Amino acid sequence: MTKTAAEIAQCIQGTVVGDTTTTISGVTNMHNPQAGFVTFIDNPDYLADVETTAISCIIVPQTVTQSKKTIIQCDNPKLAFAILLKEFYPQQKFSRTISEQACVAKTVKFGTAVTVEEFVSVKDNAAVGNNTALLTGCYIGKNVTIGTNCIIHPHVAIYDNCVIGNNVIIHANSVIGSDGFGYVNTGSELAKVPQVGNVVLEDDVEIGACTTIDRATMGSTVIRKGVKLDNQVQVAHNVEIGDNTAASAHVGISGSTKIGKQCTIAGAVGFADHCEIGNNVIIGAQAGIPSKKKIRDGQIFLGSPARPIEQMKKQFGAMAILPRIIEKVGKLDERVKALEGGK
Amino acid sequence: MTKTAAEIAQCIQGTVVGDTTTTISGVTNMHNPQAGFVTFIDNPDYLADVETTAISCIIVPQTVTQSKKTIIQCDNPKLAFAILLKEFYPQQKFSRTISEQACVAKTVKFGTAVTVEEFVSVKDNAAVGNNTALLTGCYIGKNVTIGTNCIIHPHVAIYDNCVIGNNVIIHANSVIGSDGFGYVNTGSELAKVPQVGNVVLEDDVEIGACTTIDRATMGSTVIRKGVKLDNQVQVAHNVEIGDNTAASAHVGISGSTKIGKQCTIAGAVGFADHCEIGNNVIIGAQAGIPSKKKIRDGQIFLGSPARPIEQMKKQFGAMAILPRIIEKVGKLDERVKALEGGK
Amino acid sequence: MTKTAAEIAQCIQGTVVGDTTTTISGVTNMHNPQAGFVTFIDNPDYLADVETTAISCIIVPQTVTQSKKTIIQCDNPKLAFAILLKEFYPQQKFSRTISEQACVAKTVKFGTAVTVEEFVSVKDNAAVGNNTALLTGCYIGKNVTIGTNCIIHPHVAIYDNCVIGNNVIIHANSVIGSDGFGYVNTGSELAKVPQVGNVVLEDDVEIGACTTIDRATMGSTVIRKGVKLDNQVQVAHNVEIGDNTAASAHVGISGSTKIGKQCTIAGAVGFADHCEIGNNVIIGAQAGIPSKKKIRDGQIFLGSPARPIEQMKKQFGAMAILPRIIEKVGKLDERVKALEGGK
Repeated sequence: MTKTAAEIAQCIQGTVVGDTTTTISGVTNMHNPQAGFVTFIDNPDYLADVETTAISCIIVPQTVTQSKKTIIQCDNPKLAFAILLKEFYPQQKFSRTISEQACVAKTVKFGTAVTVEEFVSVKDNAAVGNNTALLTGCYIGKNVTIGTNCIIHPHVAIYDNCVIGNNVIIHANSVIGSDGFGYVNTGSELAKVPQVGNVVLEDDVEIGACTTIDRATMGSTVIRKGVKLDNQVQVAHNVEIGDNTAASAHVGISGSTKIGKQCTIAGAVGFADHCEIGNNVIIGAQAGIPSKKKIRDGQIFLGSPARPIEQMKKQFGAMAILPRIIEKVGKLDERVKALEGGK
Repeated sequence: MTKTAAEIAQCIQGTVVGDTTTTISGVTNMHNPQAGFVTFIDNPDYLADVETTAISCIIVPQTVTQSKKTIIQCDNPKLAFAILLKEFYPQQKFSRTISEQACVAKTVKFGTAVTVEEFVSVKDNAAVGNNTALLTGCYIGKNVTIGTNCIIHPHVAIYDNCVIGNNVIIHANSVIGSDGFGYVNTGSELAKVPQVGNVVLEDDVEIGACTTIDRATMGSTVIRKGVKLDNQVQVAHNVEIGDNTAASAHVGISGSTKIGKQCTIAGAVGFADHCEIGNNVIIGAQAGIPSKKKIRDGQIFLGSPARPIEQMKKQFGAMAILPRIIEKVGKLDERVKALEGGK
Repeated sequence: MTKTAAEIAQCIQGTVVGDTTTTISGVTNMHNPQAGFVTFIDNPDYLADVETTAISCIIVPQTVTQSKKTIIQCDNPKLAFAILLKEFYPQQKFSRTISEQACVAKTVKFGTAVTVEEFVSVKDNAAVGNNTALLTGCYIGKNVTIGTNCIIHPHVAIYDNCVIGNNVIIHANSVIGSDGFGYVNTGSELAKVPQVGNVVLEDDVEIGACTTIDRATMGSTVIRKGVKLDNQVQVAHNVEIGDNTAASAHVGISGSTKIGKQCTIAGAVGFADHCEIGNNVIIGAQAGIPSKKKIRDGQIFLGSPARPIEQMKKQFGAMAILPRIIEKVGKLDERVKALEGGK
């Protein structure tokens, strides 16, 4: 596929400055510039670096008005880039057939154009919506419902009674609906508390690879519309995560914690149980949120135990100079002794 | 299924205070109170909150003697709750048949009433005990033995020669018996040390989803009776975990570390290699236990590097006020200078 | 299999001191000493402990010149031990056949002596080299190429277009080539950035169980020759890891970070995005490397946020005595006040 700069500009609602007939055959990032390709910058400071490469066209913010290269100005270069990637590299196509090497219970209900690949197992009374693809070897438990346009990658396991919305993507080897980690210590053993709830993934959720989301003890563990979880994230029973929140790899969220909308959770953050996190909260990598902690809308927290960013940055700075401070205190002690002796 | 308060009291060895004929059709937690349901409190302070809901019956500790609702007094309300959950939501039933879509070596020995679902593979000389269920797509290596009444969830992989006891549950996509992480640095490469041991899971062990337990270099990695491991826990070669210890998600245990009985390991704790942890030890979330560390019975450790709780709580508190202390030291310096100058 | 001490010495290029006819039937570690077995020590201090056991033969460094037991002196006892393990416990043998219960696209190209076990799926245009084994239920996407002598363990998923070198081992339930975690925040949603690159694993790489390596947004995520990744490691899009680097369990590496050669990354270390780590770097367990951090060749870093070892050890020491220091500052304040009052 090739497109001219003018065609690309139309596609991303941008304005060409330079040669509108520049021919583009692919999209690349600024680290791999090549002739015949388009890339983007979202910071004008990077322009100088990119213009000196072989790249043919650069998508730029409106504040960039001229360049040695053909540029296309637009409001959100990164979004434009995402749109172009979809244009140049169209989404995977599926067979829209049910493999004879799949194992599908008689009571399963399929929509139209469903793909079921080999070694997939779909259990009694499951329902799968139009255009959804169940890829090699995934497992769909009893009474599970899956919406339309979903992609369930190889070896995903979805336990009984879970509910998956529309346009959901779940990457390989993730587990949805495993038992919550609930026991009663009887003194002589840890007696299992049956986990009889389920997991609900709302529309537009994407789940990474090897991520685990436990079913609720009772009720539902709920991942709301548009949430994105990276690989190897752990979500415990009865957790709730609000719309469009994103959590990076190795994040762990303990039982009954509620996280608000549009939050950004960096890698390896741990939430203890029963936390209440507001909307638009940002948590820095490796932070630890103690049990029952409440964080208000819009706050930024760092560290373990986590504290507001201003406070934690001061604390990190203070810790770095601490050995010198201790030395200084020792000298002060000497000096005060001298003064005391001199009284 | 419905039961009267009197029937429930009998079932949990409790005493009804109020209407013994109250009819109950299900069990719920205190966050989802509904008419016709029973819940529990283990702390009398919560009574006021729960009695004002539509709930029909509350299981309470002996210290609660009256309520606006029908109450059932008992010694251990949480245990009673677990018993009732089992009563109202009976365990999953399996087919007790061998699927024609499974792949079972001729030398495999099965007990009675074994369930083997589709796409399960069982290799040469494996043995599986009575009533055990091997669910969709799980993999049982050569010479593996599995006891009675086990549930091996979808896509679990158990490598050759591992030994699984009775009443063991392993959740989806976990791996038992992968190679330990052992290499010799020859200067030019990392030469693999063959891992020729195995993993032993004793009776009543439960393993979460996407958890990994490596085989021993030689000998066995041993998970003793009643141990519960959450999701995404990593257990390295030659580790040993004592009876009824519980470890939460993202815990990592390095090679040859020994952990005692009845310990509680919170989420994302890391143990370096060759640690020796006593019985009844508690480790707080995200703590880091250094190499060869010994922790005595009954101790509580927090932080990274981990220290005893009293010490670490002081340290956390001190760190929080550190920026103010540094300011104070600066001022002290000024004041001492003034005094010195005034001499 | 049995060997005499003389035969073993020849095999590891060592020198027997003692009875060269001592018969050995197996290899063991120093924690499981048995008659008829050989073990090794790499530190002369351990000799006294081992000689008092039933062990029949000990491989020792050249500095050990005599013992009550038959000893074999050599330059690198640990390497010798690895060589002997391979000798006594030969590698797993595979069927070298294509199972009729596998699902192989017509366009797939196989070398000679390839093993494809049951429930394996190999998609269009994949190519698999000589002697490679695809074990039960693994998934090989379209256009994937796999070299010679590889072992792909059960349920591994390798997404489309990834490239696997020779002598690569991937343990069960790992995922190679899942989508990078890339979204554009449009204000109303997180729009997915298509991930159109791939993953390249070079020769001699070993990947643990439940490890995930994301495909590049564009270009390749590259794991270079001889790299060893433990279980549950997460490697994000566009990361590059240099020759012979080893990373332990639960390590997370964020997008576009580059790590050099021969590095040692301990458990649960987190790298933020765009870090540049030199060669021969060592990072201690649970350390956190901030975004865009550069670390020079040969440095050792600890802590979160990570700092050079000398600095961080001082800081850890200082933190431990901090509560006492704060007390001392309080007393100093009193004493200075007294002096001030006394002026």
